[in-house]
Amino acid sequence: MLPPDLDAFFVANDARIRGELFDLLRIPSVSARSEHTADVARAAQWVADNMSTAGLRATVHPTAGHPIVVGEWRGAGAGAPTVLVYGHYDVQPPEPLDLWDSPPFEPAIRDGRLFARGSVDDKGQLFIHMKALEAHLKVRGGLPVNVVVVAEGEEEVGSDHLAEFVEAHQRELACDSVVISDSSMFAPGLPSILSSLRGLAYFQIDVTGPATDLHSGSYGGAVVNPAMALARILATMHDRDGRVAIPGFYDPVRDWGDRARREIAALPFDDGQFRAETGAPALGGEKGYSTLERVWMRPTCEVNGLLSGYTGEGAKTVLPSKAMAKVSCRLVPDQDPRQIERLMKAHVERVKPDGVTATVTALHGGRPWRAELDGPLYEAARRALAAAFDKPPVITGEGGSIPVVGDFERILGAPVLLMGFGLPGENAHAPNEWISMDNFTRGLRAVAVLYDEMGKQGV
Amino acid sequence: MLPPDLDAFFVANDARIRGELFDLLRIPSVSARSEHTADVARAAQWVADNMSTAGLRATVHPTAGHPIVVGEWRGAGAGAPTVLVYGHYDVQPPEPLDLWDSPPFEPAIRDGRLFARGSVDDKGQLFIHMKALEAHLKVRGGLPVNVVVVAEGEEEVGSDHLAEFVEAHQRELACDSVVISDSSMFAPGLPSILSSLRGLAYFQIDVTGPATDLHSGSYGGAVVNPAMALARILATMHDRDGRVAIPGFYDPVRDWGDRARREIAALPFDDGQFRAETGAPALGGEKGYSTLERVWMRPTCEVNGLLSGYTGEGAKTVLPSKAMAKVSCRLVPDQDPRQIERLMKAHVERVKPDGVTATVTALHGGRPWRAELDGPLYEAARRALAAAFDKPPVITGEGGSIPVVGDFERILGAPVLLMGFGLPGENAHAPNEWISMDNFTRGLRAVAVLYDEMGKQGV
Repeated sequence: MLPPDLDAFFVANDARIRGELFDLLRIPSVSARSEHTADVARAAQWVADNMSTAGLRATVHPTAGHPIVVGEWRGAGAGAPTVLVYGHYDVQPPEPLDLWDSPPFEPAIRDGRLFARGSVDDKGQLFIHMKALEAHLKVRGGLPVNVVVVAEGEEEVGSDHLAEFVEAHQRELACDSVVISDSSMFAPGLPSILSSLRGLAYFQIDVTGPATDLHSGSYGGAVVNPAMALARILATMHDRDGRVAIPGFYDPVRDWGDRARREIAALPFDDGQFRAETGAPALGGEKGYSTLERVWMRPTCEVNGLLSGYTGEGAKTVLPSKAMAKVSCRLVPDQDPRQIERLMKAHVERVKPDGVTATVTALHGGRPWRAELDGPLYEAARRALAAAFDKPPVITGEGGSIPVVGDFERILGAPVLLMGFGLPGENAHAPNEWISMDNFTRGLRAVAVLYDEMGKQGV
Repeated sequence: MLPPDLDAFFVANDARIRGELFDLLRIPSVSARSEHTADVARAAQWVADNMSTAGLRATVHPTAGHPIVVGEWRGAGAGAPTVLVYGHYDVQPPEPLDLWDSPPFEPAIRDGRLFARGSVDDKGQLFIHMKALEAHLKVRGGLPVNVVVVAEGEEEVGSDHLAEFVEAHQRELACDSVVISDSSMFAPGLPSILSSLRGLAYFQIDVTGPATDLHSGSYGGAVVNPAMALARILATMHDRDGRVAIPGFYDPVRDWGDRARREIAALPFDDGQFRAETGAPALGGEKGYSTLERVWMRPTCEVNGLLSGYTGEGAKTVLPSKAMAKVSCRLVPDQDPRQIERLMKAHVERVKPDGVTATVTALHGGRPWRAELDGPLYEAARRALAAAFDKPPVITGEGGSIPVVGDFERILGAPVLLMGFGLPGENAHAPNEWISMDNFTRGLRAVAVLYDEMGKQGV
């Protein structure tokens, strides 16, 4: 049941809200391109001005990179809970431009979809929160919770200055919960709460044999081939059942329990369609798990890159001096990237053939995350989504990582709720990015209700 | 015992012979560089003129590439055997020039070594034959055998027109044996007969999974990783003892017998020094064989190159669409490159994981070769080398391939003798190429005696 007063506000202001969203989407705030630095700054100022008009106290904070905009409303008082809303106003580069059916920075609605770079990732979703807050403040003059909105301009380039900013402003940003709308629903009409993210432990393995490339005729057979040695090392990383065979790898993995597996199994998911989307001849993976379980709740060990010797056209009879592999593990709770690094190094050292050296360098790591689904924050989210979408939300997972989630939890000590309004196929980082206008409309209501429900639940 | 008349000729003509060799080495006949086309042609003419002066009938045959020079002396008559001498007058590019201690095309003698591009590979060794023939013709007015010298100008760029030329001139080039001096002795003072060459079967293996590179977070674990699949395929190619594990691979391999292994074991060879030259942390290979046996008489399976996914700096979380390996097998008698191709294709198809496709493309192949060491041709060579070096020759092998050897045997049906005067470390394709002046001097005598001995042996 939607609150009629807020709903009426959205209906009455529909044209203006769309117009503002179009204005925001027209700013080419491409954080990765230095020629767009002024555009990124302009978008930050636009967001701050729009927040001010909505009734928030807005500040543009410069960083060593692009600015961070903070909007605050503290009218609920010191006794009320505080929610921190995070979003980003920067966007991916729009290239290749010739694949767009309409210009990336000229919003266009076709077939119920709003096409523009940033429409779903994440300007559109950040704007949903800004307008839901405005509805509360304009219609009711206040909210049941205090609100801090943090909008950054570097999400698409690694959020390099966000954690530092949050740490430096811990007291101003102190909150009871964090809400992020920068993800997708599982399917159209199916409101979703994203409850898990995998972590990452990324390595480079370098195998070295002879000091220089040798002639494979003059030396082949008597000098251990580093590329073959690398292949033999990599082949030890899985057993025949597709399980990672690095000793100790699964020790910290928490069992998700039957209920989570039943919920995953109940989702409308088709292996055939998923396979067709990838173009792979067949799916595969760890025995005993479904496709969604393999992607969401099971850790992996993947080769991301291989390089050795001669890779050009035709034949060159070289016995390579070196062979390199990029290898990364997706992690699930409670695996720790540093522990996985120790296990990987010990494993490679153990299985490496004689006659070569092998070094493992950790390049990048991030912890896995899984929400505590019981409790008032998620109860509020369930109710808000059910009210706006006329259907209870499903619980979904994500095989990739969103590093800021862990950063917020770690620095602010508050639980994070991931509630997004994108859809599969939304082309977030590709040409023809879009957001469903129905999801935008319902998202506005869902977020408006969420603030009410958070007040009721005391979170 | 050297024939005094020929020896006296070499002594008396020593300065002139050196002067001529220097003239030949000064011509930058770099077959790989189009700017040296005229130099290559000039070298061909120089060789023809020098042969004429020596008493041969010399012809420069144009080809679609660089010319082939043929010099003939048929004075031994139709009843006498005919020997075909093969050599090449083209040279490798001299670059990098700054690593030469004296200019590559300005011959210089230091410490008993003659430094110049082509000094040992192969102008110097071809010239040994030219001067040995001249000695016979000038001193004695004839030879006990008929002689055809074939000097090509494209050896360093693949001998593209040689086989075709030999086929087209089969009748003029008909012979009873072929002698080539384009190889090295096993060690200083140790005259050597090169008795075996390995063949080659070179493949590219392409493994394909998804249609495009995928995000390793969103898909990793549920889509088979082509790079990991490739590693698993490659890891099946050897067993734990370093034997090639492709079924049927060793079936055609001929046992070399105890005598050959004893002769190899008797050679002055030091594993530690060989290892130090390669810079590898340790040697390795097929269990049960020594280093020289592994390189000369055992077949191999090597990875020559690997390429997949992201190979730049840092971390990119890609699940690659494709993975490629260059894989080649060095072959020994009686392995056949086409048979190995069939075995390799069947093996890869059998071991390839589900969820990917794997194709094997044959890129290049060459048959292995091994001399029949018993018989008059090799007896003549043993006697000639023993006379010139005061020591019986050793029998050596070569892990690489010299394709023209097989071509001559196949087209002309004559056995080939490989008797070279280079030395280890001669820098044949590197800066500061050299030939030992002692080997040059003794080589002249050895070849002069060889023609006598071939007459005596009737080959």
